[in-house]
Amino acid sequence: MSRCTATYRLYDDKADFRKKAESIAVGMTVGSWTELPQAKRESMQKHLGEVLQVDVHEPEGAAPGERYADVTIAYPDINFSRDIPALLVTVFGKISMDGKIKLNRLGFSDHFVQGFPGPKFGIAGIRDILGVHDRPLLMSIFKSVIGLNADELREQFLRQALAGVDLIKDDEILFENELTPIEKRVEVCLKAAEAAQKETGKKLLYAANLTGPTSSLKSQAKKAIGAGANALLFNVLSYGYDVLHELSSDPEINVPIAAHPALAGAFYPSPHYGISASVLLGQLMRLAGADLVLFPSPYGSVTMPKAENMAIRDELISRELPMKASMPVPSAGIHPGLVPLILRDFGTDVVVNAGGGIHGHPMGTEAGGRAFVQAIAAAQQSIPLAQYAEDGHPELKAALDAWGGER
Amino acid sequence: MSRCTATYRLYDDKADFRKKAESIAVGMTVGSWTELPQAKRESMQKHLGEVLQVDVHEPEGAAPGERYADVTIAYPDINFSRDIPALLVTVFGKISMDGKIKLNRLGFSDHFVQGFPGPKFGIAGIRDILGVHDRPLLMSIFKSVIGLNADELREQFLRQALAGVDLIKDDEILFENELTPIEKRVEVCLKAAEAAQKETGKKLLYAANLTGPTSSLKSQAKKAIGAGANALLFNVLSYGYDVLHELSSDPEINVPIAAHPALAGAFYPSPHYGISASVLLGQLMRLAGADLVLFPSPYGSVTMPKAENMAIRDELISRELPMKASMPVPSAGIHPGLVPLILRDFGTDVVVNAGGGIHGHPMGTEAGGRAFVQAIAAAQQSIPLAQYAEDGHPELKAALDAWGGER
Repeated sequence: MSRCTATYRLYDDKADFRKKAESIAVGMTVGSWTELPQAKRESMQKHLGEVLQVDVHEPEGAAPGERYADVTIAYPDINFSRDIPALLVTVFGKISMDGKIKLNRLGFSDHFVQGFPGPKFGIAGIRDILGVHDRPLLMSIFKSVIGLNADELREQFLRQALAGVDLIKDDEILFENELTPIEKRVEVCLKAAEAAQKETGKKLLYAANLTGPTSSLKSQAKKAIGAGANALLFNVLSYGYDVLHELSSDPEINVPIAAHPALAGAFYPSPHYGISASVLLGQLMRLAGADLVLFPSPYGSVTMPKAENMAIRDELISRELPMKASMPVPSAGIHPGLVPLILRDFGTDVVVNAGGGIHGHPMGTEAGGRAFVQAIAAAQQSIPLAQYAEDGHPELKAALDAWGGER
Repeated sequence: MSRCTATYRLYDDKADFRKKAESIAVGMTVGSWTELPQAKRESMQKHLGEVLQVDVHEPEGAAPGERYADVTIAYPDINFSRDIPALLVTVFGKISMDGKIKLNRLGFSDHFVQGFPGPKFGIAGIRDILGVHDRPLLMSIFKSVIGLNADELREQFLRQALAGVDLIKDDEILFENELTPIEKRVEVCLKAAEAAQKETGKKLLYAANLTGPTSSLKSQAKKAIGAGANALLFNVLSYGYDVLHELSSDPEINVPIAAHPALAGAFYPSPHYGISASVLLGQLMRLAGADLVLFPSPYGSVTMPKAENMAIRDELISRELPMKASMPVPSAGIHPGLVPLILRDFGTDVVVNAGGGIHGHPMGTEAGGRAFVQAIAAAQQSIPLAQYAEDGHPELKAALDAWGGER
């Protein structure tokens, strides 16, 4: 019997967690069991959920509110259609509202996973496009773009491109607007990218923000691709995972998709409720086909505990899934001094992603990008940043002076 | 300048909440302000967010963790497209991940609201279809339907219909399946509804669960309507509000839509994070066009604090919005003894919704439905349930004996 699993953390000072787990396993599948006649039980057996594990954590002298259990339940695939909405409603629909319960992990059956082609490009595919295989990638974020016209946008794009970044992404709060509709943004920015490439010799991906009514997203994406778009940015959680899945599995949408974590904080930070960051931004983003996944780093301004960050990364690259790996993009408050930390924690398969850390550089945007390029080069060679900075890299030196080095 | 507003609760033991609010108002709109040259400020003024209110709650001798502020910020409509994903990303995208912050209320500008026709039927329209204007409606929920074939489904439907309920809804975990695809469910159930109507004289709405890939939902809905469906059930939060909005504003989907709250518990229960129940299940469900909205009641098994329930109801029926009112459906663990409480809190414009309280009745499903019909009649006449039960209503008496009366 093919089954998906869900692991929850339940907090309760007194509950019989085993009983509670059984009631979830029955209640979220066949509804009732003990009352069923024997013949009915036989036909229902294949639909019945099963408690696989109950680990009660009850330290001696635990204060009120500290007692919890990690519970894993298996749900027969036969009960739900092979899509993320059905899976989520099955494993966390009603019970999300029933006391202190957090969904901490999913386990996908082979059968379920086969419904998901996953990322079209993934880490290797993005590297192939850019022709960069041996170092972390560098992404720059448009800043303060609301109200800018196409010329102003082009100007900001060019400065970032000349800095030598590999990817540039739209601000996630830039929606369809009259000044810079997506096909126009793509057109002016990619022209600027070409101009910059003549100077830098570097290829560049520009992730344009895909917005608007759900039913128009595919045509918007194709319009953008028609105008030359070579990547897309998408606010997945405001639309739903299934929308990303449909976009990523459309053969005509043949560019990498970067998933933005906007709204994720409504789900993951509470210990008692919601969905863990590794399910939300790790397992489900990859399943739905995100080639790159942004999430708050443990280093910068908007922070997430490091263990959760590592759990996201593990899910994005885990070999347990047959699909391509998604590129982790720890974000927010990143400055060059943090680069060695990022590489230590994530290895080479990571995107160093900066907004303020590039645009806010004391010597300007171009210098801001170069400081990161230098920091990555130093970290790759295990040269201390301060030493590398002194060694003829004034942009890195200015960044370290402004924001500090490794912490 | 037309603007939408968002009210947040921020917890922090030390923060300068005014400064924090200013940083949100600037950061989530124009990005930076103090650094901008004067000329740029003039052109950017119309895009700039504004802090409208900061109420700091800092009781003397407050324990750590108790200090908070309620902050209201106005966001110019010109910054975002007129859809719910854009609004949510604008007001709660990045900042949902930035410390203890909960989105507690939205304020919609006239301009924004004009993009949303709202519920096609609403309370009045549902009453017109059913021909019932003077009493609460009664809804019954299919139970334990996974694995049932069409005959078994029909049988369960008929028993509920004969009990005299006004609406019957699918279990939200019943997805597209080979045994009972939506058009087959609709066909057999509505035939049973007709048969029952000959006995009861009552019209009946059957809300069939709309599931499957996002892009197929409209055609699924039309297939169901073609087969005679007179209502739909939809797991809104697993698909996104915009999908509901697109369904509800399609002229061919001319039946009431009931919004199920599956997954809502991942957002609303924490005091520190997420989105309040009144935004999630009140404001946004109505805006997106739900005719009926289910949510956990404060009475039953899966509970929500009463103040939150009343806040949902207020948003569903508020005259501040120009659109039709959505019907509140407080759910979970409802039994006949609770009917007077429900009417006291919600008035007449409410759906009394029961699953176990009907199917689990000691005298069977039909008696379970009749017990509710009796409880509603008694409560409408302000007759104590116990008295009405003794007065020739054995089904109500059995229910009160089993589950108790008003608490």
